Amino acid sequence: MHHQNPVFIPGPTNMPESLRRACDLPTIDHRSSLFADILHPARDGVRRVLKSADAEVFLFPSTGTGGWETAITNTLSPGDTVLAARNGMFSQKWIDMCQRHKLEVIIVETPWGEGIPADRFEEILTGDKGHAIKAVLATHNETATGVRSDIAAVRRAMDAAGHPALLFVDGVSSIGSMPFEFDGWKVDIAVTGSQKGFMLPAGLGIAAFSKKAMAAAETGGLPRTYFDIRDMVKGYAANGYPYTPAVGLLNGLKVASGMLLAEGLDNVFARHTRIAEGVRAAVHAWGMELCAARPALYSDTVSAIRTPEGFDAARIVKHASQRYDIAFGAGLGQVAGKVFRIGHLGSLTDVMALSGIAAAEMVMADLGLKIRLGSGVAAAQEIYRTTAQPLALAAE
Amino acid sequence: MHHQNPVFIPGPTNMPESLRRACDLPTIDHRSSLFADILHPARDGVRRVLKSADAEVFLFPSTGTGGWETAITNTLSPGDTVLAARNGMFSQKWIDMCQRHKLEVIIVETPWGEGIPADRFEEILTGDKGHAIKAVLATHNETATGVRSDIAAVRRAMDAAGHPALLFVDGVSSIGSMPFEFDGWKVDIAVTGSQKGFMLPAGLGIAAFSKKAMAAAETGGLPRTYFDIRDMVKGYAANGYPYTPAVGLLNGLKVASGMLLAEGLDNVFARHTRIAEGVRAAVHAWGMELCAARPALYSDTVSAIRTPEGFDAARIVKHASQRYDIAFGAGLGQVAGKVFRIGHLGSLTDVMALSGIAAAEMVMADLGLKIRLGSGVAAAQEIYRTTAQPLALAAE
Amino acid sequence: MHHQNPVFIPGPTNMPESLRRACDLPTIDHRSSLFADILHPARDGVRRVLKSADAEVFLFPSTGTGGWETAITNTLSPGDTVLAARNGMFSQKWIDMCQRHKLEVIIVETPWGEGIPADRFEEILTGDKGHAIKAVLATHNETATGVRSDIAAVRRAMDAAGHPALLFVDGVSSIGSMPFEFDGWKVDIAVTGSQKGFMLPAGLGIAAFSKKAMAAAETGGLPRTYFDIRDMVKGYAANGYPYTPAVGLLNGLKVASGMLLAEGLDNVFARHTRIAEGVRAAVHAWGMELCAARPALYSDTVSAIRTPEGFDAARIVKHASQRYDIAFGAGLGQVAGKVFRIGHLGSLTDVMALSGIAAAEMVMADLGLKIRLGSGVAAAQEIYRTTAQPLALAAE
Amino acid sequence: MHHQNPVFIPGPTNMPESLRRACDLPTIDHRSSLFADILHPARDGVRRVLKSADAEVFLFPSTGTGGWETAITNTLSPGDTVLAARNGMFSQKWIDMCQRHKLEVIIVETPWGEGIPADRFEEILTGDKGHAIKAVLATHNETATGVRSDIAAVRRAMDAAGHPALLFVDGVSSIGSMPFEFDGWKVDIAVTGSQKGFMLPAGLGIAAFSKKAMAAAETGGLPRTYFDIRDMVKGYAANGYPYTPAVGLLNGLKVASGMLLAEGLDNVFARHTRIAEGVRAAVHAWGMELCAARPALYSDTVSAIRTPEGFDAARIVKHASQRYDIAFGAGLGQVAGKVFRIGHLGSLTDVMALSGIAAAEMVMADLGLKIRLGSGVAAAQEIYRTTAQPLALAAE
Repeated sequence: MHHQNPVFIPGPTNMPESLRRACDLPTIDHRSSLFADILHPARDGVRRVLKSADAEVFLFPSTGTGGWETAITNTLSPGDTVLAARNGMFSQKWIDMCQRHKLEVIIVETPWGEGIPADRFEEILTGDKGHAIKAVLATHNETATGVRSDIAAVRRAMDAAGHPALLFVDGVSSIGSMPFEFDGWKVDIAVTGSQKGFMLPAGLGIAAFSKKAMAAAETGGLPRTYFDIRDMVKGYAANGYPYTPAVGLLNGLKVASGMLLAEGLDNVFARHTRIAEGVRAAVHAWGMELCAARPALYSDTVSAIRTPEGFDAARIVKHASQRYDIAFGAGLGQVAGKVFRIGHLGSLTDVMALSGIAAAEMVMADLGLKIRLGSGVAAAQEIYRTTAQPLALAAE
Repeated sequence: MHHQNPVFIPGPTNMPESLRRACDLPTIDHRSSLFADILHPARDGVRRVLKSADAEVFLFPSTGTGGWETAITNTLSPGDTVLAARNGMFSQKWIDMCQRHKLEVIIVETPWGEGIPADRFEEILTGDKGHAIKAVLATHNETATGVRSDIAAVRRAMDAAGHPALLFVDGVSSIGSMPFEFDGWKVDIAVTGSQKGFMLPAGLGIAAFSKKAMAAAETGGLPRTYFDIRDMVKGYAANGYPYTPAVGLLNGLKVASGMLLAEGLDNVFARHTRIAEGVRAAVHAWGMELCAARPALYSDTVSAIRTPEGFDAARIVKHASQRYDIAFGAGLGQVAGKVFRIGHLGSLTDVMALSGIAAAEMVMADLGLKIRLGSGVAAAQEIYRTTAQPLALAAE
Repeated sequence: MHHQNPVFIPGPTNMPESLRRACDLPTIDHRSSLFADILHPARDGVRRVLKSADAEVFLFPSTGTGGWETAITNTLSPGDTVLAARNGMFSQKWIDMCQRHKLEVIIVETPWGEGIPADRFEEILTGDKGHAIKAVLATHNETATGVRSDIAAVRRAMDAAGHPALLFVDGVSSIGSMPFEFDGWKVDIAVTGSQKGFMLPAGLGIAAFSKKAMAAAETGGLPRTYFDIRDMVKGYAANGYPYTPAVGLLNGLKVASGMLLAEGLDNVFARHTRIAEGVRAAVHAWGMELCAARPALYSDTVSAIRTPEGFDAARIVKHASQRYDIAFGAGLGQVAGKVFRIGHLGSLTDVMALSGIAAAEMVMADLGLKIRLGSGVAAAQEIYRTTAQPLALAAE
Repeated sequence: MHHQNPVFIPGPTNMPESLRRACDLPTIDHRSSLFADILHPARDGVRRVLKSADAEVFLFPSTGTGGWETAITNTLSPGDTVLAARNGMFSQKWIDMCQRHKLEVIIVETPWGEGIPADRFEEILTGDKGHAIKAVLATHNETATGVRSDIAAVRRAMDAAGHPALLFVDGVSSIGSMPFEFDGWKVDIAVTGSQKGFMLPAGLGIAAFSKKAMAAAETGGLPRTYFDIRDMVKGYAANGYPYTPAVGLLNGLKVASGMLLAEGLDNVFARHTRIAEGVRAAVHAWGMELCAARPALYSDTVSAIRTPEGFDAARIVKHASQRYDIAFGAGLGQVAGKVFRIGHLGSLTDVMALSGIAAAEMVMADLGLKIRLGSGVAAAQEIYRTTAQPLALAAE
């Protein structure tokens, strides 16, 4: 049999065929004018998806992790202090990266399932009279727990404290899928990758810099070459690149951002909310709980679902893969074995989402969890029936 | 949004990506030895899928309809008589073709929902002392009604009558998906297309001839050129073709038949039965009935589902398409407006099938039919859970 | 090593990647409105490429041979007489088809290398006082000899004779590559395939009917079903098809005709002339002659090149394939062994054409023909240098 | 017109369709066992192409530049000294990277067009009694000048000096195309990318470490996270990755290395030599000179061709692109405007190479250089005719 089921991991996402084709480009001369027609629209498209008028967008053959490294190595100096909450595996990893690069990190320990405590940030920033803190790191959507933090609140905390630190936001699993306001939130660096909201293969690290971040990059910075935005700035100005670009992925990014903008960002976000609400309705119909502590924190791109005490949630992921060829996400770090995750971002229809819910029901029933077959599907169907839009069908 | 849902029409089927790639071949010289390496394995693969030791397989840039025309124009002469049952749209169309080609057709009118009445065939054949009947036409699987006829019984009827007529079988929606015994049933001509059990795009008409049919082709025949098997025989003998071959589709057929044989035909058939049983369990859970009169007639490739008296079944197909971007089959001919059809052949997983069932539930509920959401899904889940095989996963 | 060289056969042609992708369409429901958005633009695109205001375009899963059969079986009756010149393998094949369908064919034997003798046609038609001749068959471009006949002259002959016969034109290797005036020449049926000027895979037979031909189809016709345009007319009127359409190829045809029209037909034809002139300059630089008797007859899509007396031209094709992985066309019929053919239609750049010429030089030198290496290339370079257009480059 | 000509830049190379397809993989769960079946064969394949028994191969979503950074940041400490020759743009860039990372670089200035002066290296290393030099950096193939340096000689120099420094080799434009002996030359780190000898899109930085380099990585190293091989080692051991892998490219690398090994590395290298000799014969026939000072230095992957004094070589690249849609490489750095480059690595046939030579002739003639049209083609044809192998043709 053939591998055809959609995936339900929280990225890389299912890819529309049109985007796969956009990436599968024959070789072009990346030093010719053809490249400019790919590079600049890709950068511009990302900027518009971020809702920014003038952010500088940098695109590295890399991943979101490379985007993090771009942020910190271009703006901070050895020994600089940053502020971050630790509320999941991905915030933890960014903290770890800072420490490896000899930065001081003020860590606000936060329960996994909670969002960034903006009030605590405000206290700390207010207390930092000498402005030792150079940057605030915020993970917009904790992919490990399915928690969306309130970045606007973080910005309000910073402003309330009158603190000049830079605001770095990890939007890897939010950008392109959930509202993101680069300018509105006065974000200084936003980081993402190609394989989530942009529905592309992994391979691009994306970092957008505000003017303030650009200024910081001129004076500060850690030793760097590959992720040095100064080389990128020079390259882009000459319609080029400091090294060989991943042309196909860049073309994919051009097409993907165009696709999102054509659909309308608000429609894209509403679509993600609809799909997510169906999944959450299913979870509740199963009598289960999300890892995210309360609805205000619910992520529209991934749901981490708590399994009963004493049950190893990893068995769900393994059994789903081996018996039904369906991929869910496992719990990571503190919540390993305690949750499994359903990714519901990117290219996903109502009908596809129902198939993932139906598969999860079979898997949990097989493993002895008390699940009434069809119950989650029915709950999701109710959501989808009442919210679906008549389609304007068209061949690609 | 992007067109990504699986289709649930009774062919063309969903296509595995490996087969799409096999068809998407760059141009080769079809007069070079490269072509022989495609043509002969494709023909041989079809022969083995038919379970025949020595059938001559002909492959026309065409469709199943072209396969029908190949059968009758190569073996019959103007005014010849053929015997056929009319129990659905596709048997009707083949009868019509015979009449257009000035053949006499003895038509056994049969309720739509019933199979070929082998006993009635036996009576007629027994009564045909002068052997005026030159061919018996049998539609193995009536795609319009979801009825599988018993070809072995037709053969037994012919043998019991001691009648020398040729046996032509339309296996368009059965071959490659349900058991077919070319040699075992002493079929003289089997007809199919590329877009059903072989999971390819439409575009190839396939006709396999027994030795007896080949002999008939030497002496009889209606005026023909395009579908003349004599040109094909000559072409194949020279590793070529009488006109420009559809090389990509032929390569697809080579790969597709290899794929079916590698899985094992019995496994392929069992897989279709499993998927079909899930769909049928859903139908019964909905409190609805199949068009096929009894379980022995149930098709494993398509289910035609009767909708309540007074309800226009065509609305289901239209609404499914417009609101959920899901394709079901409409009723045709006598059962137009009375049934809708779920195709479940070819490349389809349990999880995909569940998504089609879930979609059908939403559609019917939207249109006011009394359907408990999730009920059909639950019934199918029970089937799939108890029959699914652990997968040996592998990247393509 | 990998098969990457362009082909130099006179069709199927090299395919632009954009057209391969247009053909490689995921399965859609061909009974949904999606199909109408493919079918009608494809038909309309062909009509415009033919330069006709109102021809009815029919598209069969088939080949050009099926197009011929469509022409004769829909309009002529058993015993009808047609007029045709025999000046190559493809005109011969069409004549043979007519004879198999019990038509009388008045054959004007014409040397291979010559075009249709319009004056002789005029004599015959003038002499046919009873209008026994129902159709004149004309092969626009004899692919076997590289000869383009003057269809306008054939029409003038018919008009001069005041003869009401239908004019059927085989434009398989001319339409989309060389000027064709369906309305201007008062063509009644034009026939082509997908794999030549439209640069698609083989698999579509294309036949366009004038109003006069449509009228003939209402009253006349031979027994037919698959190629019956009456079923097509009904199907198209309902946005459908009488049997399963080859959706991918139809989508390819939609895109291909759009591509030709966007380039501008005059530009397309001029491009073919340029490329052809380069090839012909090479042939003359080699000291060789074309099969086509004089420049007025030179085809812009294929050149048949005479090899020296006593040399088996088939060796060129075989050696090119085996040693350099390059495909040329062999001589067919009367000119088998006497010519080899270089196809130069469809998707071909100057640079690609030069590679074919360079390959031919190596092959002929290897086989002992007196060819100065580089001589043909130099002659073609002179043509291409002086005629090349600056490109407006764009990524696909 | 459509972009179909091969490219003649020194990477990214033309890509075989089979490799493009290997990269264009649908989304899989990179935390499932499917990924292990891609990752480990890819790493193993690279190791075998490098001719190493036990090198640790690291694969980063990155480029060759990331490979350089991997080499230096994992093994060296701030203030460490390295030795390098500067004989072209790419050796220059690596030196620059070292300096940015606060390493001391002993630079041996070397004329562009010359190779690494192993004797000078030996002197310096011999003089370095305190073993301050921690690493020797060697660019195997200077892509900017078309010069291949003798790495075996560099190793002999190090051994003669009894010096324990690590040997880092940039094999970006040599590995997979020209002989490379990781174990034989006792290379400690070899660096390459996906887009040259492996014929894939850009996007993977590849670095192979000897045991000695692995040991150095345990104790030394600069601040790093993204390129930290310790995370990769842990990830690989668990069949995973420290961040989201570029699964498609990794699958491409698995298939590409398998393809090279199946052809036989010696055959691959011989093929590159043949193609290169044809290009060089053309250059000499034009009366021009290579940038590489003497035959022993000629690169088999790229030829940098000196244009006459006073002529701006960049015009060739621009005109080729604008008028003939052909991509050549421009001169870089010191040789900007003085050379143009023909890349001849990766997926290239004799016939494709001839088309590039023919195009270059037209371009140079257009720009007024004294080139006899066809002269270079003829010289290359002589080479190719006498060295071509009969092909064993097979459909992909």
